[in-house]
Amino acid sequence: MSKPKVLIAHRPGPEVEAMLEDAPSELEIRFLPAGEKLGDHISDIEILYGTVNESDFPKAKALRWIQQPFVGVEWARFPAFRDSDVSLVNSRILYGPQIAEHAFALLLSMTRGITTQLAFMRHKHWEWTPSIEIAGMTMCILGLGGIGRAVAVRAKAFDCKVIAVDKEPVEKPDTVDQLGQMDSLVDFLSQTDILMVCCPITPETHKLLSHDQFNAMPDGSYIVNVSRGKVVDEDAMIAALDSGKLAGAGLDVTYTEPYPEDGPLWTKQNVILASHTAGGSQNIGKRAMDLFIENLHHDVNGEPLVNVVDKQKGY
Amino acid sequence: MSKPKVLIAHRPGPEVEAMLEDAPSELEIRFLPAGEKLGDHISDIEILYGTVNESDFPKAKALRWIQQPFVGVEWARFPAFRDSDVSLVNSRILYGPQIAEHAFALLLSMTRGITTQLAFMRHKHWEWTPSIEIAGMTMCILGLGGIGRAVAVRAKAFDCKVIAVDKEPVEKPDTVDQLGQMDSLVDFLSQTDILMVCCPITPETHKLLSHDQFNAMPDGSYIVNVSRGKVVDEDAMIAALDSGKLAGAGLDVTYTEPYPEDGPLWTKQNVILASHTAGGSQNIGKRAMDLFIENLHHDVNGEPLVNVVDKQKGY
Repeated sequence: MSKPKVLIAHRPGPEVEAMLEDAPSELEIRFLPAGEKLGDHISDIEILYGTVNESDFPKAKALRWIQQPFVGVEWARFPAFRDSDVSLVNSRILYGPQIAEHAFALLLSMTRGITTQLAFMRHKHWEWTPSIEIAGMTMCILGLGGIGRAVAVRAKAFDCKVIAVDKEPVEKPDTVDQLGQMDSLVDFLSQTDILMVCCPITPETHKLLSHDQFNAMPDGSYIVNVSRGKVVDEDAMIAALDSGKLAGAGLDVTYTEPYPEDGPLWTKQNVILASHTAGGSQNIGKRAMDLFIENLHHDVNGEPLVNVVDKQKGY
Repeated sequence: MSKPKVLIAHRPGPEVEAMLEDAPSELEIRFLPAGEKLGDHISDIEILYGTVNESDFPKAKALRWIQQPFVGVEWARFPAFRDSDVSLVNSRILYGPQIAEHAFALLLSMTRGITTQLAFMRHKHWEWTPSIEIAGMTMCILGLGGIGRAVAVRAKAFDCKVIAVDKEPVEKPDTVDQLGQMDSLVDFLSQTDILMVCCPITPETHKLLSHDQFNAMPDGSYIVNVSRGKVVDEDAMIAALDSGKLAGAGLDVTYTEPYPEDGPLWTKQNVILASHTAGGSQNIGKRAMDLFIENLHHDVNGEPLVNVVDKQKGY
């Protein structure tokens, strides 16, 4: 009997691919050759490292599960896949460290006046400017998954009060002082100095942050978005920036990406746009491959896979 | 008998000055009127909130102690004061939170490519750029005082290995993995991905970081300086930036301040100059006054003052 076939369609480079020497010998590992099409190599594949589009999916007759080396699963919404028995594994939790670092980079660049000082540097100008201290402030984390939890650990070390809202009845980590469900959002926002958006995009979170939510926040608060731009009603956010309700917005993501050239956020005071770079890390390729190899072993041992996505919920 | 007199020469503003209602009633609190000279009001003052210069000091016949609302004590080196019985109290520890926040703002702005993204924004340009993850890196904290300790707490939450060097035989906090004295510096630097300069300037730390120290570091490491520019030999640091030994330098402070207009750091790749703004905080005025009022109570109760500086050592 031939071995079950695994295809590495997302090619992470030689150093990471070498890790596959530790894959179970019961499996045949193949690599999608550079420049070739997934559709031409998928027919007998049982396990895929990468993603598959709607037109190739019908060719994947043998496919049992897919692991994607990133978190967001918007690509996987087409009904033929969503309603199929093919499982989807994502890379949640693995992205926690670097995205939390990015969230604090965006936040602290605003509060510590780094944006202002960098502008001064272009004119060789040295001038003291005031800074904001986040210690003692209340941070609200919207979405307490792998990224939200990594943000919470760091926020606690910065002496913030940490409150969090999640759709699911998740367990409260020690680093979170208060945890609520979605119906607590506006109440929580009324105490929020710093709002960290860490939730997935789903029909329920689309434009979840709009006029009512921003209006509930104290004047001079901050928003940082490191998950998905479509969670935010950008017109409402811009109104909140204009009114002073928001003192700053650190945005790794926007409603439309790339952010449109005629959009107003490019030139707004105290807005940072970061080109969806939060996931970047010199370590993530290895972490994702580690999880894949772990899941290959689970597969041959008949054990449940780690990080399986609920395709109906979309996270 | 008249009450001992206290002069508030550094005027922190009405909201903070109102806190002095909680000062001991055994003391007479005076405020230096705006625009008037300290020398004209110092003769019968026993306790001063502020600083005194070399020409006014001989007029301060009754002075017993001074509290300064900041940390560095370079102003206090003149022999008449240094060798006198007048005690000096500084604001160490109080500056820990905001300076630690500033240190991470400088570090993460470099590692997460925020400087690059802000430059892109000026051209309305959206482009993914790689980022560095600090989780798992080794951070060396030079100077484990109030600021160094606040940095260590945060570094641990970011999953760094924390090593620290201090001149004094200080106790190792749980957030520090390894602690050494000055003779360990070069050895520690050989393991250092991120060097955080948090030590005072003294004759012993003047240009402490020079060619040998930078050469000991791994290629592509980072330096952040939030204490004093004179701890760094800037020519050596610039050579290390040019050779790639240093991947970036986040500098709140420089050898000469303001940094000279013809200095090379203004235009160096991956250097941030922040105009000595790290101490800024909306909370520091109140924290410093809290400590002053606490010390006034210690004084009337005959108890030792908190945060007394060793004037000979200079910290």
